[in-house]
Amino acid sequence: MGKIFVIGMGPGGLKDMSPRARKAIEVADLVVGYSAYLDLLQEHFLGKQFIKSGMTREVERCKLVLEKALEGHNVALVSSGDSGIYGMAGIMLEVVNKSGSNIDVEVIPGITAASAAAAVLGAPIMHDFAVISLSDLMTPWELISKRIEYAAQGDFVICLYNPKSKNRSGYINIARDIVMKYRDANTPVGIVKNVGRTGQTSVIATLENMLNNEIDMFTVVLIGNSQTYIEKGKMITPRGYRL
Amino acid sequence: MGKIFVIGMGPGGLKDMSPRARKAIEVADLVVGYSAYLDLLQEHFLGKQFIKSGMTREVERCKLVLEKALEGHNVALVSSGDSGIYGMAGIMLEVVNKSGSNIDVEVIPGITAASAAAAVLGAPIMHDFAVISLSDLMTPWELISKRIEYAAQGDFVICLYNPKSKNRSGYINIARDIVMKYRDANTPVGIVKNVGRTGQTSVIATLENMLNNEIDMFTVVLIGNSQTYIEKGKMITPRGYRL
Ligand SMILES: C[S@@+](CC[C@H](N)C(=O)[O-])C[C@H]1O[C@@H](n2cnc3c(N)ncnc32)[C@H](O)[C@@H]1O
Ligand SMILES: C[S@@+](CC[C@H](N)C(=O)[O-])C[C@H]1O[C@@H](n2cnc3c(N)ncnc32)[C@H](O)[C@@H]1O
Repeated sequence: MGKIFVIGMGPGGLKDMSPRARKAIEVADLVVGYSAYLDLLQEHFLGKQFIKSGMTREVERCKLVLEKALEGHNVALVSSGDSGIYGMAGIMLEVVNKSGSNIDVEVIPGITAASAAAAVLGAPIMHDFAVISLSDLMTPWELISKRIEYAAQGDFVICLYNPKSKNRSGYINIARDIVMKYRDANTPVGIVKNVGRTGQTSVIATLENMLNNEIDMFTVVLIGNSQTYIEKGKMITPRGYRL
Repeated sequence: MGKIFVIGMGPGGLKDMSPRARKAIEVADLVVGYSAYLDLLQEHFLGKQFIKSGMTREVERCKLVLEKALEGHNVALVSSGDSGIYGMAGIMLEVVNKSGSNIDVEVIPGITAASAAAAVLGAPIMHDFAVISLSDLMTPWELISKRIEYAAQGDFVICLYNPKSKNRSGYINIARDIVMKYRDANTPVGIVKNVGRTGQTSVIATLENMLNNEIDMFTVVLIGNSQTYIEKGKMITPRGYRL
């Protein structure tokens, strides 16, 4: 029986991946994941077998990983960012539990998109924050919008993952309207696309004008709290130190 | 004029630190940070000058970093976890901005404690979550408790940083009582201490009995949402895939 590693590779390529994650890929003989992520890695791990799959089909992917591990392979299942934040860790554990197998699953964390985007913007998540996915594939919009409402009322910095796709282009607009009920129109909003990857872009906008920017499925959106400000091109949420 | 790198070293030692962070330390000739973190690194970077400081005194630390950088040194300022989550990124940018200097500050993210703890526990933050610090050093308790209240009502998984210290031993108890108003007493709670470091411990408790465990300033506490469950010793918050 082999072993399963569920790896967070960080936002970009090899330079953001922890040595622990790298080592797990080296130990594995089979590397499984979404093709766009594996393309960032493949050249660095010659001689491994890579199995690339489409963006969805997560359950099938995990079943394949389990099957291969039961055959004796050490398998690395790769997520972008952190494997435990909207990544593959949960579903992999659920598939293994359901199978009744007692195969060893090791979850290896990574740098999540919010941290990486924050570093590009300055220091926007220095105070309490909420992370919300706008994907309604498995979560009813009522629950998502309720969470945005509470996060806005609690004056959390808000990090929006999966902000847009062809099928739900309107949610980011509604999300912004909800936050506008509680926060100033001039609240800074950081919009970062493809962090750590080719084509990285970063904009600091406001709640008022944020929707003038392209926001797609490779983008993370960070909405400041009531204290967040912009200075010298950096978005900063102060913690309250006296300078 | 030198350059300033504000580095997130991840939760533990070198094995959790990204190559980008490591390279920045290699480029720096001066490494500054809290002594307990630098002790995890020093042996791996022979020939560098390390300046270790106490836990507090963050503003003085940043002023020293700026001074040294203005003298021409490349300085690496090290935070544990992510430098942008209750780390040194914000205060460093604020100190530089206030000084009027146009010195270059590069923020390098790291794996934050919540991600690392989640990986140890299973997959507890697979759905929307809120990160809240219980430290009232610079945040009034009224705001902290209000945020706990909203996060609980929004059914967020809740990650508590700075859950306890000598001076505020009661806050974790109050935090738990607030969440109990909205969540079942059997809600799983993960308590992870010294993730990735010597002496790592991890317990999965419930809201009801969580306070029977030692919770100190090296601990992060992850409170599940209404869907979180425990299976085969793993704490899992499902995203809703059909298996
Ligand atoms: C299914 S989630 C995966 C999140 C990932 N596990 C993490 O921890 O970053 C996909 C969403 O994460 C965000 N994301 C992931 N990687 C990103 C990157 N490099 N740049 C910008 N956003 C990213 C985007 O919001 C994207 O729609
Ligand atoms: C000032 S905050 C720094 C957080 C750090 N920048 C991060 O992103 O993880 C300190 C708190 O982070 C949490 N923490 C940091 N490192 C930890 C570790 N290795 N194990 C458990 N908790 C940790 C604890 O709650 C601690 O009280």
